[in-house]
Amino acid sequence: MAGRITLLSGGVGGAKLALGLYTVSAPEELTVIANGGDDLELFNLRICPDSDILAYTLAGQVNEPGGWGIRDDSFHALERVRQLGGTGWFNLGDTDLGLHLFRSELLRQGVGLAEVTRRIAEKLGLKCRLLPMCEQPVSTRLATEEGQLQLQEYLVKRRAEPVLHSVHFDGIEQATPAPGVPEALAEAAMIVIAPSNPLISIAPILAVPDMRRMIREARGLKVAVSPIVGGKSLKGPSDKMLAELGYAVSPVTVAELYRDFLDVFVVDEQDAACMEEVEGMGLRCVAAPTVMKDLACKQALAAALLALL
Amino acid sequence: MAGRITLLSGGVGGAKLALGLYTVSAPEELTVIANGGDDLELFNLRICPDSDILAYTLAGQVNEPGGWGIRDDSFHALERVRQLGGTGWFNLGDTDLGLHLFRSELLRQGVGLAEVTRRIAEKLGLKCRLLPMCEQPVSTRLATEEGQLQLQEYLVKRRAEPVLHSVHFDGIEQATPAPGVPEALAEAAMIVIAPSNPLISIAPILAVPDMRRMIREARGLKVAVSPIVGGKSLKGPSDKMLAELGYAVSPVTVAELYRDFLDVFVVDEQDAACMEEVEGMGLRCVAAPTVMKDLACKQALAAALLALL
Repeated sequence: MAGRITLLSGGVGGAKLALGLYTVSAPEELTVIANGGDDLELFNLRICPDSDILAYTLAGQVNEPGGWGIRDDSFHALERVRQLGGTGWFNLGDTDLGLHLFRSELLRQGVGLAEVTRRIAEKLGLKCRLLPMCEQPVSTRLATEEGQLQLQEYLVKRRAEPVLHSVHFDGIEQATPAPGVPEALAEAAMIVIAPSNPLISIAPILAVPDMRRMIREARGLKVAVSPIVGGKSLKGPSDKMLAELGYAVSPVTVAELYRDFLDVFVVDEQDAACMEEVEGMGLRCVAAPTVMKDLACKQALAAALLALL
Repeated sequence: MAGRITLLSGGVGGAKLALGLYTVSAPEELTVIANGGDDLELFNLRICPDSDILAYTLAGQVNEPGGWGIRDDSFHALERVRQLGGTGWFNLGDTDLGLHLFRSELLRQGVGLAEVTRRIAEKLGLKCRLLPMCEQPVSTRLATEEGQLQLQEYLVKRRAEPVLHSVHFDGIEQATPAPGVPEALAEAAMIVIAPSNPLISIAPILAVPDMRRMIREARGLKVAVSPIVGGKSLKGPSDKMLAELGYAVSPVTVAELYRDFLDVFVVDEQDAACMEEVEGMGLRCVAAPTVMKDLACKQALAAALLALL
């Protein structure tokens, strides 16, 4: 028994590690805190992409190879929306949509997002805890050469093409860690930062007031896995976004972003050359195979993390 | 050319006559004003059952024999809602849901319901005009032996079983006829009241402030078709509801409800015995085959109405 593990995660990339931890450790001991910065309101529904990707992945329902949405889902509702001339750029399958209907109705009834997420996880059969980072709506807004874009507009509609100037988390000042988050951080034997995009997947979680302090003061080991491998991001536009904001596209940059609370930084084996620089920051640095191309890889990385305890 | 026809209609029953008029007259001359009293908010979406039944029927997409929803629609979203423990009693197919998503998004953006309905009708290829009775939300609420029920709860969830005490239209005082409605009434050569439930399908339309006066003052011939045939309602619980509210279940009762503005009342041929009593109210009464069991019957009734001009 490794003790409690709390994972801070974005969507597809983080969900791979979540599944590794879920399947090699006791899932009852695992808590996943999902980024809520890419939540959006569409069709008057509250959509929580990262939380849902995590839930679908851990429930074994996620569509592969994309890593989002429900496997073999139909798209009849969205086809009708498109036919009528409505917003068609955000892909919503019909079964997936059912979850958004359920969540939106409960939120409207005044049920908190943490409780809604708990019910979803329970009904999907998850044995771990899945928590939103906060219950208040927070919206990641990107200032780009094409003007302000909501995160999903930037990622999905504009395919992360516009040059990025800055990142803002609208509503973050009013946010508070969701019920369950303080306990999950305080009780964890290990707090893991998933190899998710540091700017738009992990930064919103850390930007929730009190979150960063709670992580720093938690008694558990704080470990982060680099999302930058061999000079580029394994998944998504982390590399492009870091470069456009003036950062070096390197694991060292990511370690720097978490330096104030981190104990151990995990780089991929091909980035062993970075280890000395990370250690120079006063962090412990470990090399491991971090490319999670199949379940065995996910489990191997998870096992390597658990071995740190 | 018969001139403009304006039909006031509820859902399934009225849509049969709407289709008859649509296919025997010039559809460009037809305006259908849909009851909005059974609109509901579900899953944070605005659902307009009667307007949608009319649109689907006239577009040739309606599911038969029920007469509501989309033919061959899937129900994946609702299955997921039910699996998660959400509201599952209101049947929403996936393609149908796409229309509710589209409408809800536009309403949230501040587009009026009449314009939203116009766009839906246009994209579904309707050649006639389809109008909501008003743009403000109105909700038919039934006081029953089981307490207050929203109309769809009563009809769908409770299958119209509870004994009815009274009918209320919440929000009706703030309602105004939707854009296009005054013109459609003023310009009509004939205003037709469909053989829809007089208490919950036609009464809400007539209860919109100014509506009844505008119909009364319109220059066109005002004609209503009895929904009561042979002592019972052909479709739905009109008969039961009339009886529980203390009315005689008879075409005469329906004629009485519309007497203040009506010129011609159409009863089924099997109710010829009622004609004298209706004529005694000062109305012209006509017998016609009103049971619309197939398209030919719908067209025959429509033709009989047009012949009144």
